[in-house]
Amino acid sequence: MQRDSRPHDRHDGLRPLLEPAAVAIIGASDDEARIGGRPLRYMREAGFSGSIYPVNPNRETVQGIKAYPSIREVPEPVDCAIVAVPAKIVVQTLEDCAAMGVKSAIVFSSGFAEVGAKGEAMQMRLSAIAKRSGLRILGPNCLGLLSFKSRFFATFSSTGDGVYFEPGPLAIISQSGAYGTHLYAVARSWGLRVSHVITTGNECDIDVAECIGWAAEAEEVKIIATYAEGIKDGPALIKSLELARANKKPVIFIKVGRSEEGAAAAASHTASLAGSDEIYDAVFRQYGVHRADTTEEMLDIAYACTAGIYPTGNKIGLVTISGGVGVQMADYANKCGLHVAPMPEAAQKKLKAALPFASPRNPVDCTAQIFNDLSLLGTNFTIMLDEGKYDVAVAFFTIAAASPYIVEPLLKELDSLRERFPGRLIFLSLMGPPEIVARYRDAGYLTFVDPCRAIATAAALVGFGESFAGKGKTIPDDARPAEALPVRAMSEWDSREVLVCAGIPVVEAKIANSPKEAAAAAAAFGRPVAMKINGSEFSHKTEIGGVELDVATPDDARRLYGLVRNRAKEQAPSAQPDGVIVAPMIDGGVETILGVQVDPVFGPAVMFGLGGVFVEVFQDVVFRLAPFGRDEAMKMISGIKGAKLLQGVRGGPPSDVDALADALAALSRFAASHADTLDSVDINPFTVLPKGQGAVALDCLVVPKGLEER
Amino acid sequence: MQRDSRPHDRHDGLRPLLEPAAVAIIGASDDEARIGGRPLRYMREAGFSGSIYPVNPNRETVQGIKAYPSIREVPEPVDCAIVAVPAKIVVQTLEDCAAMGVKSAIVFSSGFAEVGAKGEAMQMRLSAIAKRSGLRILGPNCLGLLSFKSRFFATFSSTGDGVYFEPGPLAIISQSGAYGTHLYAVARSWGLRVSHVITTGNECDIDVAECIGWAAEAEEVKIIATYAEGIKDGPALIKSLELARANKKPVIFIKVGRSEEGAAAAASHTASLAGSDEIYDAVFRQYGVHRADTTEEMLDIAYACTAGIYPTGNKIGLVTISGGVGVQMADYANKCGLHVAPMPEAAQKKLKAALPFASPRNPVDCTAQIFNDLSLLGTNFTIMLDEGKYDVAVAFFTIAAASPYIVEPLLKELDSLRERFPGRLIFLSLMGPPEIVARYRDAGYLTFVDPCRAIATAAALVGFGESFAGKGKTIPDDARPAEALPVRAMSEWDSREVLVCAGIPVVEAKIANSPKEAAAAAAAFGRPVAMKINGSEFSHKTEIGGVELDVATPDDARRLYGLVRNRAKEQAPSAQPDGVIVAPMIDGGVETILGVQVDPVFGPAVMFGLGGVFVEVFQDVVFRLAPFGRDEAMKMISGIKGAKLLQGVRGGPPSDVDALADALAALSRFAASHADTLDSVDINPFTVLPKGQGAVALDCLVVPKGLEER
Repeated sequence: MQRDSRPHDRHDGLRPLLEPAAVAIIGASDDEARIGGRPLRYMREAGFSGSIYPVNPNRETVQGIKAYPSIREVPEPVDCAIVAVPAKIVVQTLEDCAAMGVKSAIVFSSGFAEVGAKGEAMQMRLSAIAKRSGLRILGPNCLGLLSFKSRFFATFSSTGDGVYFEPGPLAIISQSGAYGTHLYAVARSWGLRVSHVITTGNECDIDVAECIGWAAEAEEVKIIATYAEGIKDGPALIKSLELARANKKPVIFIKVGRSEEGAAAAASHTASLAGSDEIYDAVFRQYGVHRADTTEEMLDIAYACTAGIYPTGNKIGLVTISGGVGVQMADYANKCGLHVAPMPEAAQKKLKAALPFASPRNPVDCTAQIFNDLSLLGTNFTIMLDEGKYDVAVAFFTIAAASPYIVEPLLKELDSLRERFPGRLIFLSLMGPPEIVARYRDAGYLTFVDPCRAIATAAALVGFGESFAGKGKTIPDDARPAEALPVRAMSEWDSREVLVCAGIPVVEAKIANSPKEAAAAAAAFGRPVAMKINGSEFSHKTEIGGVELDVATPDDARRLYGLVRNRAKEQAPSAQPDGVIVAPMIDGGVETILGVQVDPVFGPAVMFGLGGVFVEVFQDVVFRLAPFGRDEAMKMISGIKGAKLLQGVRGGPPSDVDALADALAALSRFAASHADTLDSVDINPFTVLPKGQGAVALDCLVVPKGLEER
Repeated sequence: MQRDSRPHDRHDGLRPLLEPAAVAIIGASDDEARIGGRPLRYMREAGFSGSIYPVNPNRETVQGIKAYPSIREVPEPVDCAIVAVPAKIVVQTLEDCAAMGVKSAIVFSSGFAEVGAKGEAMQMRLSAIAKRSGLRILGPNCLGLLSFKSRFFATFSSTGDGVYFEPGPLAIISQSGAYGTHLYAVARSWGLRVSHVITTGNECDIDVAECIGWAAEAEEVKIIATYAEGIKDGPALIKSLELARANKKPVIFIKVGRSEEGAAAAASHTASLAGSDEIYDAVFRQYGVHRADTTEEMLDIAYACTAGIYPTGNKIGLVTISGGVGVQMADYANKCGLHVAPMPEAAQKKLKAALPFASPRNPVDCTAQIFNDLSLLGTNFTIMLDEGKYDVAVAFFTIAAASPYIVEPLLKELDSLRERFPGRLIFLSLMGPPEIVARYRDAGYLTFVDPCRAIATAAALVGFGESFAGKGKTIPDDARPAEALPVRAMSEWDSREVLVCAGIPVVEAKIANSPKEAAAAAAAFGRPVAMKINGSEFSHKTEIGGVELDVATPDDARRLYGLVRNRAKEQAPSAQPDGVIVAPMIDGGVETILGVQVDPVFGPAVMFGLGGVFVEVFQDVVFRLAPFGRDEAMKMISGIKGAKLLQGVRGGPPSDVDALADALAALSRFAASHADTLDSVDINPFTVLPKGQGAVALDCLVVPKGLEER
């Protein structure tokens, strides 16, 4: 795993880039439609307050501003250079910038890593300049940035055109320029104001992770929307996400694609079930990030976050003027993981008294009758929030809320409600002319046309609330670097020893080196045993006939010792046997699989799933980055679809999930402690016995990392 | 199951309601804001072309039109009476209407079945009037209807206000008035034109199913959007859905809530897994209906259906100016069940030649470079559609498409593309001022801001295309009514006999009535057997010790005969044993469950799932209405999440799914033939052996319907 050690302070280092006092535009053009002309026009039109120095060796002035033949002639220290020159002279241009003490550069130019090996080599030179000189570089091959507080519109995207908002709370950070500006355009069309749009392009220096960290600390940013195709520096991302969580700033993340590395790492059986996209899922889950699939989902959530209310519970109260829509909302809330808790009985009686036709349980169906006397709505809604104690409420009013007879009295009721319950997250589902809808928004409510979109969004905010409340904190403090694993393949017996030391329960076993020892072991256990060929080169023991199960007697064990060895030798002649493991058969319990894989980006992750066909047929597995504690392990266990199986089905007893959780947490500590020397762990099956009886690994393999990878 | 037998022709009977030549408004009000005043105002303002007769005993004129003291005084035959009077005089009013030969009535009045028993009784009188006289009644407790061709705006909803569109292709049919008008308001705000909005309210006569059937036949309707909380007449709905499919009209359906009846019917183990919401799912799947969850999903699809293009394949081609968005689209298309097929190699070469930077596989990433020469876009897109033969294409242009430099040349390319491939479904993801977006729509393209919404919508249209192409046709023609099942509980042995006759493979077995017969049976099978107490009153045989598995020898069988009988007698003293079933043990195979339940609304449905813990833990079951053929059975089998298990996992052989499909189809014919006398069937386990070896029921129970239910 690569760890970054840039000399400069990462986050505060972005200030010259985002809030420059003096800007040079290298390759500045008089043509306002060209790449080198647009940012200059945008800054002029928007009223950028700093100095602007066009650089163009062929002109005295550019767009009416005095031009300079090179960055070396610019008379003032430059905070940020916008570079809009052909790829082949970018390296020299940035060398010049670095020599002149320019603090940051935005490289629009394309023709780098995205076009193949030659471009990649050039890009590495840019990275080297950044590292050596401290010049911070955004790009190359990026669409630049928009920084609203400074009115610094350093982009050639047409989204820079025309609309120069006051800054808002949303920072958009995107690897893709086209997507980042699309996101901004959609946000703008919704009236959702942004603080920054930063597109990172090829990321020769500044990456999405660093920008998130910066935004997490920037006072003017309250909400972070990020788009990435891949993250190179996992630990840096995690650090930024931790910072965002600590500062209670929601991060909404669209991560597309599945990394090549993940697929390549699919070596062991466990790992082949992975695909590092699931690791991203795990990271996002662990750090309270909402992973969105679509632009609308992302911006719905960003919009709702502008209310700054992050509920700590998931109880949702639903108010409707249509019984049918009430059911639709309840169905959908349930699907989104929200709890449509019924109103307390006493409160239901009060509601019923106020409005006899109303259905008071939750959803509270006021019927359209409510509009005859809107004070009833206020009364009902107050009873709901007061006695139902809902964390979130969604009220469906549709176009009725825009009727001229309704607006004023409804707002009056809603105003006093808002005053009384300032901390509750309340959505109104309504539609009407923009100026009417704006009045409800101004009254402190979130408005959506579609009640289901409001509900899905509410669920996301509940997720942030839980994460901010510290429920997401998962790191135990007793994980520390441990002795390196050996630089050689480990046998099952070696693996056992290591895992037992790590606190993972492994079935009692003996190693036998002769028929006599095998018989003695079987006799010592006094019950049927399993016999398995041992040796670091046997990876598929069953397939080569190296396993005998249900060996009933010591005599059988004596006889089978030779058979097992001989079959293994025959099928895998080059492998060196190292005894035969004899272990008692374990009856009953639920078979699960525990595993570790070391993700090239994020480091060690623990996998958990049900064993046998479940994992193959349903791919019902979950991942978490290591290390984590018992609470997170419990969340993993309840996070698989087949979790019910561990609660006891068909009259079977509930399983010892406490023992399972302890083992998962122990495995995660082991994985974290050996991150640098571990390739993978595969514990399959890990049998969870009935409650109180523990859990036990029946087979296990620890694969150390080869020396060349260390 | 109730079957309707109204005397009047169901569908054409709605013409007087929807296209009346003469309308009476009973309870007409001079106050334009009141329930009896609004429809009159709307009709006047919209220019309803027929005669209007306000009925109000207290006024000479209403809103300037001559009024009549009662419906009996109206001088012309009336096609439709709008009834806006208090509930208590509705019965008399409708009696008067019927007496005067009024053809239809729309009853706004509330206070019927929705308020309890007394209202229900009144509503039954309305139903009786309709049945007896042929007066067709919409409502009561409904918001009326909007019929755009006739400019007949018979509603008191404020949605009737102000905007009187030309008719469009979309019929909105909703039980809920509030939701139906909300749907209409959203459609209107999107510029999506509608033909009708019909709200059916309490459905004392006209129901959603009939309206769908009518819309399926009405020439002006091309798309049907329906909302219902529950359907009373399943066969009528199915008939209407068949009609819509035959006429290639897509039906998009929001069905909320789960019926009480379904829960109550949860008697047998199989049935308890059901819940009739799953039956709705089955019906919608079988009849090609798209079940939507939200308003936006419904209207996105309705909008896309205005293109009238229903692809018959699911290959999607993706064009993008942003590589990242390409990946996002591909991820999402895959999630939606579309096939992101790669371009043929030769075509990829051509694309690469035209645009060296482009990624030509699919998604085809043209990069923003395309805008330097838009003819390349035309070239690329043509190659894609021509050689890639995609059924659907989505192109992501975002705001770039609205740039003044781009609009004209892009439209030029798109115009010739549209001309060349008129039958392909093509979506553009773009945004900009409405007048610019309108130009792309006018050029014959569907436009969406969010590419993922376009993709989800495309998937729905592919579903319609497959259904219209007849792939959804499932009914075999060899299912006919059969002999009634007995009016008594059936034993396992009885059930066997019946199912064997129905063509379902059941394990060979003998019934033993003495220890000697048991031994003889075991000897005859010559292998280990299972022994089970038989009798119509033993429902949980295992629990009462009435089952012995793996009985190894005839001697064991002899000995265990008495034991099995005695235990059963002891545990269930009141139950009468009827011999002991002896059947050979079957090794291997995959355990599945087959079942039948008779839904109170839709009749018999067949259930299929994996056996054992799968069904309990994953609830991995599918349903289909009976009867169906082999093809539909195959779809059921591949429709469960664990379908992979039948293909052979962990080196196991693939299962004999042909035999399984035959059994499902046979069971469906059995269920359909005995619809009137069957309560449920439970075949568990139904073991599917390796390919070529068939499949076999190991345990089964047929439960006939009690006489009182027949």
